[in-house]
Amino acid sequence: MLELRLVQGRLLKMVVEAMKELVTDANFDFSSSGVSLQAMDSSHVALVALLLRSEGFDHFRCDRNHSMGMNINNVSKLLRCAANDDIIILNADDDSDTITFIFESPKQDKLADFAMKLMDIQNDHLGIPEAEYQAIVKMRSLEFARICKDLSSIGDTVVISVTKEGIKFSTRGGIGSANIVCRQNTTVDKPENSTTIEMKEPVSLTFALRYMNSFTKATPLSNTVTISMSSDMPVVVEYKIAEMGYIRFYLAPKVEDDD
Amino acid sequence: MLELRLVQGRLLKMVVEAMKELVTDANFDFSSSGVSLQAMDSSHVALVALLLRSEGFDHFRCDRNHSMGMNINNVSKLLRCAANDDIIILNADDDSDTITFIFESPKQDKLADFAMKLMDIQNDHLGIPEAEYQAIVKMRSLEFARICKDLSSIGDTVVISVTKEGIKFSTRGGIGSANIVCRQNTTVDKPENSTTIEMKEPVSLTFALRYMNSFTKATPLSNTVTISMSSDMPVVVEYKIAEMGYIRFYLAPKVEDDD
Amino acid sequence: MLELRLVQGRLLKMVVEAMKELVTDANFDFSSSGVSLQAMDSSHVALVALLLRSEGFDHFRCDRNHSMGMNINNVSKLLRCAANDDIIILNADDDSDTITFIFESPKQDKLADFAMKLMDIQNDHLGIPEAEYQAIVKMRSLEFARICKDLSSIGDTVVISVTKEGIKFSTRGGIGSANIVCRQNTTVDKPENSTTIEMKEPVSLTFALRYMNSFTKATPLSNTVTISMSSDMPVVVEYKIAEMGYIRFYLAPKVEDDD
Repeated sequence: MLELRLVQGRLLKMVVEAMKELVTDANFDFSSSGVSLQAMDSSHVALVALLLRSEGFDHFRCDRNHSMGMNINNVSKLLRCAANDDIIILNADDDSDTITFIFESPKQDKLADFAMKLMDIQNDHLGIPEAEYQAIVKMRSLEFARICKDLSSIGDTVVISVTKEGIKFSTRGGIGSANIVCRQNTTVDKPENSTTIEMKEPVSLTFALRYMNSFTKATPLSNTVTISMSSDMPVVVEYKIAEMGYIRFYLAPKVEDDD
Repeated sequence: MLELRLVQGRLLKMVVEAMKELVTDANFDFSSSGVSLQAMDSSHVALVALLLRSEGFDHFRCDRNHSMGMNINNVSKLLRCAANDDIIILNADDDSDTITFIFESPKQDKLADFAMKLMDIQNDHLGIPEAEYQAIVKMRSLEFARICKDLSSIGDTVVISVTKEGIKFSTRGGIGSANIVCRQNTTVDKPENSTTIEMKEPVSLTFALRYMNSFTKATPLSNTVTISMSSDMPVVVEYKIAEMGYIRFYLAPKVEDDD
Repeated sequence: MLELRLVQGRLLKMVVEAMKELVTDANFDFSSSGVSLQAMDSSHVALVALLLRSEGFDHFRCDRNHSMGMNINNVSKLLRCAANDDIIILNADDDSDTITFIFESPKQDKLADFAMKLMDIQNDHLGIPEAEYQAIVKMRSLEFARICKDLSSIGDTVVISVTKEGIKFSTRGGIGSANIVCRQNTTVDKPENSTTIEMKEPVSLTFALRYMNSFTKATPLSNTVTISMSSDMPVVVEYKIAEMGYIRFYLAPKVEDDD
């Protein structure tokens, strides 16, 4: 028996929109501790990891572990039928091949239920080791999204370099070259607008802009984004989900000698 | 001689936008009592009926009955040239093959006139008998539009069922199935937000969602929509046009034994 | 050595957007007096002339005259990376084949630089004689843009006629015919909303609406537009750029005997 209730239903809408561009089918893993998901993008280059802790839900009952395969695009279609202020309830019987989404309007005058067929998805769970990172940058998620979008109009890859002074995004293309530097600044009016850098040593890595732009679909989930980098390791782009968990994107750097 | 003047010109803009998706060509029938129109959609499945009473106009002169054939898309093009706060005037001489649309800006500093050629359209007038309906539901037009749009992402047809408790919209498609229930509620802050049900006996009918979605183009005309249903009769979806009349859409139910 | 600094960087963004639709490649001419540009549209029918005076910049240093060829679409791509409140700086060394665009955020926490390759463009400079015009109309730029757009849904050409009473825009097409008259009115609440006419003798000229619509891409630059006309001369459609200069569009009238 699975029963979840989330008054802030729009969080679930945003989570699914955040990964829809990258992930086609995925298993949602339900356990007493919460909901988690791990999925590679269709070209097997980027990894998405989601965690929604049970404490973040207004009601959470999960009698035994369930792994439920869903087509993310179909889930997105259903969740688009929920208004932003709707309460969202998920229900599934043990051994059922369907999951039910229920959307309650705040005034209780409208009630929608959707039964969706589950899928059988083969999924090799990757162990993601907790790593130490050479540099961890926290910045405004909107700023990060804007930079990735802007650089995409110039080139295909971005070099992200972190020093004590700031984080630099560089690209190069047919038109010319571009560098965007965000300086560390912690003395701003609002803490969520600051750019903070924790750095053990400078690091500089190259990534495909296409994936970075997909990651920024998670921007509505959080005012800030955390970018964790170490040489020869995948970057982690993390958006916290208020009081519930996070969505993390992993992307291996490009190995290039020609820069 | 035909002379019409409507200070709230935007009503006319909305009326034409409301039927543009369904109707290609139609006769506007002018008489001393007002303007009316009856037209089938191009696939001859749905019927549109419009009434704008002469009392609703700021000036209305119609010396003798005129039936003027117009291409709705062309009328829409002309009316899009009118600003929302423009006064709209229609003029036609007897036996003229053109009609003139005049748009006056409220400050009288801009005056636009458009002469449009009329068309000869064969039109069999259908007598629509005033019927008794088993169930009449009045609900927010925006809610109805949202529900038709949402269900379209799941299936192609909608089963509309009315009971004393409420109105239920159901569909089924490749993804799964969906039910949306709006409960009767009359104790809301604003009467135009209430859902009211007058019912003699429960009724449940199946319709093509495509047409329902076309009908909802009339949503800007009215805060509420009235849905009148009886077994084996076309549903009537009516949007009142403030102090002027209405636009009504008729659609025959689908006969299906497989539900 | 070239160094320009413009705190109101959005002006530069708007200037480039204003001519992007008409001009593919063009030489920007830098001298101690400012920046100017002259370019024909790709079909060699319309002419664009731009002037940005050095006094309008917050810093302007130009040691010797430079003519720098740029692809307008590429410049637009770069400038779209500048936020509306960014300060824009242009830098170029003498004899360099690149120009650098620098965008500074107002809080100085973000700094972007873009190096763009310059092009070699053949450009015959046309002498545009200062002419006397039979009629000069000043009107709201938004109104002019709206009229050109509205008439495009009816016909392909516009006859612009000026009399003491007002300016009339007429077109004719498959649907019918249209006339829009803006009356001279100087007694409005805000002077920038007035329509003023200086006229020596009535004039009536025919133009391709397609070009007029392209000119109106400059609408964000100014609340008013000035239309100067004389028989058998190109019309001048001018948008002033606050305290800096102007962008002017020239278009030869169509010679038609069939009206």
